[in-house]
Amino acid sequence: MKLATLKNGTRDGRLAVVSKDLMRAVFAESLVPTLLEAIERWPEVEAPLQARYQELELGVAEGAFAFDPTQAMSPLPRCYQWLDGSTFANHGSLMERAFDIGITNEYERYPLVYQGASDDFIGPRDDVELPSESDNMDFEGEVAVIVDEVPMGTPKERIAPHVKLLMLVNDVSLRALAAREMKTGFGWVQAKPSTSFSPVAVTPDELGEAWTDGRVELPLSVRRNGEWFGQPHGKEMTFDFFRLIEHTAYSRRLRAGTIIGSGTMSNASRNAGSACIVERRAIETLDQGGAKTPFLRFGERVRIEMFDASNRSVFGAIDQRYVKYDARG
Amino acid sequence: MKLATLKNGTRDGRLAVVSKDLMRAVFAESLVPTLLEAIERWPEVEAPLQARYQELELGVAEGAFAFDPTQAMSPLPRCYQWLDGSTFANHGSLMERAFDIGITNEYERYPLVYQGASDDFIGPRDDVELPSESDNMDFEGEVAVIVDEVPMGTPKERIAPHVKLLMLVNDVSLRALAAREMKTGFGWVQAKPSTSFSPVAVTPDELGEAWTDGRVELPLSVRRNGEWFGQPHGKEMTFDFFRLIEHTAYSRRLRAGTIIGSGTMSNASRNAGSACIVERRAIETLDQGGAKTPFLRFGERVRIEMFDASNRSVFGAIDQRYVKYDARG
Repeated sequence: MKLATLKNGTRDGRLAVVSKDLMRAVFAESLVPTLLEAIERWPEVEAPLQARYQELELGVAEGAFAFDPTQAMSPLPRCYQWLDGSTFANHGSLMERAFDIGITNEYERYPLVYQGASDDFIGPRDDVELPSESDNMDFEGEVAVIVDEVPMGTPKERIAPHVKLLMLVNDVSLRALAAREMKTGFGWVQAKPSTSFSPVAVTPDELGEAWTDGRVELPLSVRRNGEWFGQPHGKEMTFDFFRLIEHTAYSRRLRAGTIIGSGTMSNASRNAGSACIVERRAIETLDQGGAKTPFLRFGERVRIEMFDASNRSVFGAIDQRYVKYDARG
Repeated sequence: MKLATLKNGTRDGRLAVVSKDLMRAVFAESLVPTLLEAIERWPEVEAPLQARYQELELGVAEGAFAFDPTQAMSPLPRCYQWLDGSTFANHGSLMERAFDIGITNEYERYPLVYQGASDDFIGPRDDVELPSESDNMDFEGEVAVIVDEVPMGTPKERIAPHVKLLMLVNDVSLRALAAREMKTGFGWVQAKPSTSFSPVAVTPDELGEAWTDGRVELPLSVRRNGEWFGQPHGKEMTFDFFRLIEHTAYSRRLRAGTIIGSGTMSNASRNAGSACIVERRAIETLDQGGAKTPFLRFGERVRIEMFDASNRSVFGAIDQRYVKYDARG
């Protein structure tokens, strides 16, 4: 099942079911008005939503219309918690070797994860508004999951049933601010502006065998201004989602609708490219003695998409332009 | 005006107006069902809520009842963003001098602030459930504000009108986990479990001249098992709330209902005591060559309250016991 949230002038949008090929949609609000409420009432609404999805697939859904991703908000336009990991050790290792930021991680023992802002997500085709190019604007291509309520202390072996939906992420990042914030130990606030998610969220069964042991094994296509930037796959996720979620629920429960991200995807093979600029700059620093690829300038576009084995887009594309924030806007 | 959220079996509770002396309350749900919605619709609901508060003060509010803080949830039982500063430089300085944690801060230039979990706040009289005493359980007494929507880039001179309500905070902390998480640079996840807030949130006018230049100047009473632990006042807040909020809104807007905390209150005078155990341990380490005060054990109580110049409780008391989490629930 694929679900989207369409713009209707409210903060939480209007829930819709979207066809597998992402071409058609039908509103679901007669069943449940928003995706957040759907996650909270999942045992009750899952079957009716699946039935509507089947109707849509069979071409018999009443009121079906063409799905327009430009009308999509993030599947959860806001939620009560957004936790983002950094679970691809290859990325962290490159960053540490290229840039001495004086940070100590115990990669082998604990997943890295930060608490992000969840009050104001950006739609998949909406502009990313930021204050200044001099902050070194970047993207990070990731996968994220949405969970229902995860009780405190849930072991990783019992996390799988809590994963209700998956999405793609553009973890918008401002690199010129990141190092200073990391050095405080307090994590990022200015360096992690509002985040974007894919046009649809999908149930795990939509991924078939590509969702295995808490990892999405498919490659993630990352393009900058239409040009290939990277295509790392998910098999090299060092800590899988189940271990990551277990870690975050150690001393508190996670309420329904919490989003947990994988962190930027990254593979050891240089052929995979990168899912963020700063990682390519790290590779250039290590391999060629200096970073050459510039950070984003206003007007540039980023496209993040994932294709299945049959080359069909699973989540639709995040495709957005970075623009200067206009305070008068 | 004083507002509380009373338990009714839902995640967001039931909004009530509370009398200045905290003795009486009346439901406000005929005006607006929840505090989160009230903040979102503040221009429309403020006057009717104030009118009901006046009725309550005059003893003519229909349906008024005795206010029972044990029935209170946190004023916002959950919200979309919780940002907590560390704005009392005296605290940071003590921590740095006592414990070498290898962290670099630019105290003079930038406020310290971390992104907290906002999905599951604890009621002011509810137990704090945690997994293990060996995590070194602590409290932090703070003041926090609730803002309406703050546009990206709002300068500190224009923040004041966005501050709609103030509360007290117990920023529950697990010190054995904090240093490891700080060293990653990613901030805290395990070391900052769910947070507690005071029984009521109050409009700035309730504080009179004690709310000055973005600081709450009154002393905060912190008691451990009924014994005085500290009483630091807010005048020594190094970065005031306006500067703190300006900082957090640099690269993104803050949506209505965002909570921003001061960080643990702390004064240079040793006579003020401390608003958290780890700071007293830092002082013991510096003054007496070693930390003596133990962290909390299960069964211990913490009480956090603020009194005005006439010795009246402004926000009611956070008064809660730390207990072992029972997975059987």
